[in-house]
Amino acid sequence: MSDAEAPIGVFDSGVGGLTVFRAIRRRLPEESLIYLGDTARVPYGSKSGAAVTRYALACAGILLKQDVKLLVVACNTASAHALDALRDELDVPVLGVIEPGARLAVERTRTGTVGVIGTVSTIRSAAYQDALMALAPGLRVHAKACPLFVPLADEGWTDGGIPEAIARAYLDELKELGIDTLVLGCTHYPLLKPVIREVMGPEVELVDSAETTAAVVEGVLEGIGLAAPSGNIPSFQYKVTDSPEAFADVGARFLGHPIDSVEWVDF
Amino acid sequence: MSDAEAPIGVFDSGVGGLTVFRAIRRRLPEESLIYLGDTARVPYGSKSGAAVTRYALACAGILLKQDVKLLVVACNTASAHALDALRDELDVPVLGVIEPGARLAVERTRTGTVGVIGTVSTIRSAAYQDALMALAPGLRVHAKACPLFVPLADEGWTDGGIPEAIARAYLDELKELGIDTLVLGCTHYPLLKPVIREVMGPEVELVDSAETTAAVVEGVLEGIGLAAPSGNIPSFQYKVTDSPEAFADVGARFLGHPIDSVEWVDF
Repeated sequence: MSDAEAPIGVFDSGVGGLTVFRAIRRRLPEESLIYLGDTARVPYGSKSGAAVTRYALACAGILLKQDVKLLVVACNTASAHALDALRDELDVPVLGVIEPGARLAVERTRTGTVGVIGTVSTIRSAAYQDALMALAPGLRVHAKACPLFVPLADEGWTDGGIPEAIARAYLDELKELGIDTLVLGCTHYPLLKPVIREVMGPEVELVDSAETTAAVVEGVLEGIGLAAPSGNIPSFQYKVTDSPEAFADVGARFLGHPIDSVEWVDF
Repeated sequence: MSDAEAPIGVFDSGVGGLTVFRAIRRRLPEESLIYLGDTARVPYGSKSGAAVTRYALACAGILLKQDVKLLVVACNTASAHALDALRDELDVPVLGVIEPGARLAVERTRTGTVGVIGTVSTIRSAAYQDALMALAPGLRVHAKACPLFVPLADEGWTDGGIPEAIARAYLDELKELGIDTLVLGCTHYPLLKPVIREVMGPEVELVDSAETTAAVVEGVLEGIGLAAPSGNIPSFQYKVTDSPEAFADVGARFLGHPIDSVEWVDF
């Protein structure tokens, strides 16, 4: 296998990163992909930067054993904390989801008042806030942690009165602050898009980084000459650190189609 | 230090086991206690039995290094999966919270129709259902996983419209089944007692295993002659595998008083 035929590695704390996996697969259908969900240690969003970095390095180690040519950190919390450590340690390019998401938000905002929602750990890291201000120093950024959104999405409660009441409890203050763009800074949140849109209203743009991250992956692979050769027949693998069955069930909801086979890996 | 002066070890996936820790401290004020919260790998309730057992053995190993004379598994999910493995591996008595909770429910029920709520992993293990049926084979047992209760309690959303709507979504079916006793099969759930009582009504008895577990601890220590000597001046230690600061903040809510000092331990 040439380097260009090697797979792209995508990892997340659990199942949410499949939204990014799917976007890469759609945009780059000839690329082989390996997904790793760290389901034995999920969620990362309530944990410290030190713990998240330790887990991210362990996940990267598992994927590098599969000779991935590029690593995508599909988890916002891991992108917020572990990107520098991963880049220091690894010999392959490492891409996160925060910079692409921030870039898209800066492109989309008209008024310069942007909201960011994410896990407690992501918001506390200020990684989005820093990335947005670096791209557009005049921006007004309002950030809010929404810890119940991940369990809601995992539970499949994505519409109806309860998710809407929870979304209002978190988001009303962002709406009142007059944001015109809201970054969905967690890979689970796209599943709650209808409820978030209902609360924020049609005039607020919802930005999720899956598509933009896929575009960045494409650009980097072309830039380093490692895009899969035309006509390449790709393979897709799914690995988890805890129960494969549980992952296959919930993962199908994220991917929009059943998952054939999931492999357990020790960590 | 004599064996009788040695501390009791109490561990949980995170902060919830402090409800059990507090009950033991109240009942046995001369016993030294060491609490370990496995906050780097919390929650256990969504994970497989194999993963939970692995973590429980690791936690027990940390506490045994402190020469504990008895180990209390304060986490319902760990009690459901790991009790046999812990008893096989360890030389000290190991007590879980499920058998005491089941025993109390059997004492309290008048109609023989009992409900159990807990994490997905606890309910799926059927540990409560088995313990209840072993104690009273004629019982009718209805079990229900309530995965959003833990994040609600962690978030501090323990009263008001949202917790009540979520409690109704989970518990209405148990109410309709005519249970007269409901086992709160997760150490987080006592924080939601007012909302659970509101939904279930005053005629349904809510059973939580903290007090009964403390009584079992007392009985076992007396039985093996390792109760702390009268006049013993106890010490209390708190250890966690992730951020001590986060634990101290939330833990104070569970204990009802501030926590002086929390130590990080590697795992």
